[in-house]
Amino acid sequence: MEAIKVLILMGSKSDMPVMQKTEGVLEEFGVPYKTMIRSAHRTPEATVQAVKEAEEAGCKVFICAAGMAAHLAGVVCSKTVKPVIGVPIASGPLNGEDALHSTVMMPPGLPVATVGINAAKNAGLLAVQMLAQNDERLADLLKADRVAQAEAILAED
Amino acid sequence: MEAIKVLILMGSKSDMPVMQKTEGVLEEFGVPYKTMIRSAHRTPEATVQAVKEAEEAGCKVFICAAGMAAHLAGVVCSKTVKPVIGVPIASGPLNGEDALHSTVMMPPGLPVATVGINAAKNAGLLAVQMLAQNDERLADLLKADRVAQAEAILAED
Amino acid sequence: MEAIKVLILMGSKSDMPVMQKTEGVLEEFGVPYKTMIRSAHRTPEATVQAVKEAEEAGCKVFICAAGMAAHLAGVVCSKTVKPVIGVPIASGPLNGEDALHSTVMMPPGLPVATVGINAAKNAGLLAVQMLAQNDERLADLLKADRVAQAEAILAED
Amino acid sequence: MEAIKVLILMGSKSDMPVMQKTEGVLEEFGVPYKTMIRSAHRTPEATVQAVKEAEEAGCKVFICAAGMAAHLAGVVCSKTVKPVIGVPIASGPLNGEDALHSTVMMPPGLPVATVGINAAKNAGLLAVQMLAQNDERLADLLKADRVAQAEAILAED
Amino acid sequence: MEAIKVLILMGSKSDMPVMQKTEGVLEEFGVPYKTMIRSAHRTPEATVQAVKEAEEAGCKVFICAAGMAAHLAGVVCSKTVKPVIGVPIASGPLNGEDALHSTVMMPPGLPVATVGINAAKNAGLLAVQMLAQNDERLADLLKADRVAQAEAILAED
Amino acid sequence: MEAIKVLILMGSKSDMPVMQKTEGVLEEFGVPYKTMIRSAHRTPEATVQAVKEAEEAGCKVFICAAGMAAHLAGVVCSKTVKPVIGVPIASGPLNGEDALHSTVMMPPGLPVATVGINAAKNAGLLAVQMLAQNDERLADLLKADRVAQAEAILAED
Amino acid sequence: MEAIKVLILMGSKSDMPVMQKTEGVLEEFGVPYKTMIRSAHRTPEATVQAVKEAEEAGCKVFICAAGMAAHLAGVVCSKTVKPVIGVPIASGPLNGEDALHSTVMMPPGLPVATVGINAAKNAGLLAVQMLAQNDERLADLLKADRVAQAEAILAED
Amino acid sequence: MEAIKVLILMGSKSDMPVMQKTEGVLEEFGVPYKTMIRSAHRTPEATVQAVKEAEEAGCKVFICAAGMAAHLAGVVCSKTVKPVIGVPIASGPLNGEDALHSTVMMPPGLPVATVGINAAKNAGLLAVQMLAQNDERLADLLKADRVAQAEAILAED
Repeated sequence: MEAIKVLILMGSKSDMPVMQKTEGVLEEFGVPYKTMIRSAHRTPEATVQAVKEAEEAGCKVFICAAGMAAHLAGVVCSKTVKPVIGVPIASGPLNGEDALHSTVMMPPGLPVATVGINAAKNAGLLAVQMLAQNDERLADLLKADRVAQAEAILAED
Repeated sequence: MEAIKVLILMGSKSDMPVMQKTEGVLEEFGVPYKTMIRSAHRTPEATVQAVKEAEEAGCKVFICAAGMAAHLAGVVCSKTVKPVIGVPIASGPLNGEDALHSTVMMPPGLPVATVGINAAKNAGLLAVQMLAQNDERLADLLKADRVAQAEAILAED
Repeated sequence: MEAIKVLILMGSKSDMPVMQKTEGVLEEFGVPYKTMIRSAHRTPEATVQAVKEAEEAGCKVFICAAGMAAHLAGVVCSKTVKPVIGVPIASGPLNGEDALHSTVMMPPGLPVATVGINAAKNAGLLAVQMLAQNDERLADLLKADRVAQAEAILAED
Repeated sequence: MEAIKVLILMGSKSDMPVMQKTEGVLEEFGVPYKTMIRSAHRTPEATVQAVKEAEEAGCKVFICAAGMAAHLAGVVCSKTVKPVIGVPIASGPLNGEDALHSTVMMPPGLPVATVGINAAKNAGLLAVQMLAQNDERLADLLKADRVAQAEAILAED
Repeated sequence: MEAIKVLILMGSKSDMPVMQKTEGVLEEFGVPYKTMIRSAHRTPEATVQAVKEAEEAGCKVFICAAGMAAHLAGVVCSKTVKPVIGVPIASGPLNGEDALHSTVMMPPGLPVATVGINAAKNAGLLAVQMLAQNDERLADLLKADRVAQAEAILAED
Repeated sequence: MEAIKVLILMGSKSDMPVMQKTEGVLEEFGVPYKTMIRSAHRTPEATVQAVKEAEEAGCKVFICAAGMAAHLAGVVCSKTVKPVIGVPIASGPLNGEDALHSTVMMPPGLPVATVGINAAKNAGLLAVQMLAQNDERLADLLKADRVAQAEAILAED
Repeated sequence: MEAIKVLILMGSKSDMPVMQKTEGVLEEFGVPYKTMIRSAHRTPEATVQAVKEAEEAGCKVFICAAGMAAHLAGVVCSKTVKPVIGVPIASGPLNGEDALHSTVMMPPGLPVATVGINAAKNAGLLAVQMLAQNDERLADLLKADRVAQAEAILAED
Repeated sequence: MEAIKVLILMGSKSDMPVMQKTEGVLEEFGVPYKTMIRSAHRTPEATVQAVKEAEEAGCKVFICAAGMAAHLAGVVCSKTVKPVIGVPIASGPLNGEDALHSTVMMPPGLPVATVGINAAKNAGLLAVQMLAQNDERLADLLKADRVAQAEAILAED
């Protein structure tokens, strides 16, 4: 695996349309990342392996997206002490409330930094915020992004 | 591990007061079992190891109890093709609705046989039903149990 | 009734598009089954009769699908000590949450092995897991299915 | 069974403290009734038998109380064309929302006249309203009860 | 108002497509009825007036359909001691759960016989069940309807 | 009725412990008010009468508190064009979610200004805000209250 | 800013199709208003500034619409003692239940007068009701509107 | 303000018993922090001021705890590009589900890293994970904590 800062994992290829917004944010901020389809349940060993290889490749933050009984972020969290961001995906008849509960209500000792249901853009921004701690360039870009957001709102007016 | 038919796993010792009813059922029906505390998140390797050792010891059914973002049954399911019974535990502010969602809404390909929230007795009976497939003695005891349940209701009358 | 291992019951013909996935799994694994439309409420006697005839035909596992106030699995459970798998169907304005509650929250003494809302494929696989207890061929097929699932995920990557 | 107008069925003796309010209403209005503990799941035949005997004894209305996956009213409904009143009981971790869904969301063709969770008093009053159709005395008592209710509220003022 | 047995009230004309099933049942059973659009909030006096006139016209049962904060059944209930059947309508973003709560959770003293969300057919059948108390013809038709329902299910098989 | 600015209505005396906070706010701000127990369902005419008399006594704002199928605010709203503030009360097994839905989800044309479940203090403050439109003294007191609130928070620090 | 009585704020231009009904009501009643797009999170200073300028322009009531974690009404409330009406918008996978909770469950001391999810028309009417306190013309128009509403319902009949 | 790495803000002193677990984690890991009571609504300026001073004092991560319509994390997020961790507090009748929705469902552009309801320990650990990016000592302590967690579970066995 080449050098990355963020590994994006998703439980199924069907999550990709949502998660492309995470990729878009990381590209916009120039953060090297890799995206892999790994299922907590169907590919448990390959998931663990992906976490290990990503850490060796310099990965600082994990972003995990899954729907329904969304265990992916929790499984990754159990294998790393790096921050894990969870994105509950609105799939199936409960429309993401199951995924939200399965992602955010982690037991004491294993935090998952959960963003809103389908909030792929915020997952990317949160990863950038974490990385910006050591990267003045990213911090400046984040501040510029806030200005741009404000301008976009006011331009709608 | 000595020979067992059922392995009971629970995510925390605090689940024990609920899960003692599962043990009670298995004892009543004379089914050899073992109970272990294993957390999907805090002891992932030891959980996998427990599943492997249990299978070697003859285990036919797994019963997994956990609260909140209850991933234990799902993790065990990903490591065995034996039936896995999930018991959502009512702990924390959402009172088990989170555990129910996290246990029952498994993705296609990995079933968890979910019983009601805190339904530890039913988990034991469901395991006995599965084992009774090859065990006339258990089937007879189950039928007797139904008669006894009916009599208990009618005796209340 | 000819010899079967699994009886699939559903409360209404409108559940068929979902439940065909259960049939598909049983066919794929070479498990003889029969599908019948029986309503807990509209055909109570015929439902009881179907359970009786299925047991005489060698049925080992029941799979019951129903929506809304989904009582079918519970009614079948009250008439057999064989395992009953419940599939809550997402029909009506509550989108399956009512069917989930009606299926899974059974009283102590009468377990229903509940799978996720609309999780017809998992119902089939759970039945196969139960039958594999005495059937090495099925157990091997289940293991092969897990390998195939993992390969399918990794192939998406 | 001696002559009755209403049969009260409840799934468990633990529902009695709630359902005594139904008995109180029927006694207050002088309506002959009988109370029996019958479980849809544990005593299916005895439940059917109770319905049959009650009808022979002149029963005009059934009142069924149950908690969790509350199937009792539905099962009784499937065995009679007399009105069935369902009382969802708040038992277990979901606090009656499961019983409400299991009682009220009946399929087309089989109505259950559902009152609020634990609304045992209203179940009794609804039965009296139905019986008052042919009974001027009951209709007058119901009107007097409304006056008394209003006076009680205004007296609190 | 000409002689009727049932008055159907609905809060808005938009409820009509659902409530036509109630009309269909009453017509099928030969029960004279009248349908009126009356809003608990927008036409409170006209609603009260409709109840009064219906009673004078011989009305024995009221059926009230409304969505969202569905107060219509409760308002009618406060003006009559005849049975009031409530039909929660799935309109608006909460899809009928709000209407269910607003209809069924009546305070002690004022029962509303609530059927499922959008369960217009069951509302009609429940009214017929109430009327059948004094009408052997209706009772026979109800029994025939159950037979027909069972045959329809079995014919689907 | 002597001159008042606000009429507080509650559906039951059991709501009084919550609603005393509303009274406390109005007393603190020197707003003349009257409190009455009136039930939308049990005392419909007396409720309408209270609204009428209050308007004649100068009432500018109505505050209505009720639990479960909370219709009181809606009924009052249908009888006045003055602002009606609804306070959903957490009573019964659904803990106020039913009252919230019954109060806030009003049909188009009849607004109820709903505050949080049990938010009796906010109901009082909202009434004062409405009255402050014409009353500089009240506006100044509200601003002072905000300062006091801020100081109280900072004093906790 | 020219003289206004009501300021409508919404968190995003995508809320406009819903909120045009608020504008329609204010225009119908001849109430001068202004609509601005301001986000509690993206333009916090501009939001505060808008509140300030609106007050200087004579604004008496604020109407704030937002979806999901809807903080806009709360933020505006913290900056004014004028009444703030909150409109929860049904956007995103939770369909407005999140926005309802975020808008209505304000802490003691800071009331938001919440209307139903997407209830833009009611927000406008509530604002008019508040303004009608000092404006006989508006009060008369509100009464006429009620008459028109009743007539529209009865015309549907 | 003296040099800190983490600022803990909570909306009310009543959140302190929960949030002391966050303080405990930070102390255990030797992370300098400060705790302040600041309300998004009651002390908006003081909240903004606290964020500004904390950043000047070197703060790298914000942890915000609030109940009900929990806006604190969102308000802080709108004032900094540093990561903001939100802790929904279970207060009031909705028991934290309102706070969860108000904290996690942020609009695109403003992420809040949400942990479970009342998950104060996980909030502290997540902050440490973020800080460990540049601090080998913290990373080692986190790994040791995981080992200790595993040992604690296995010791319960």
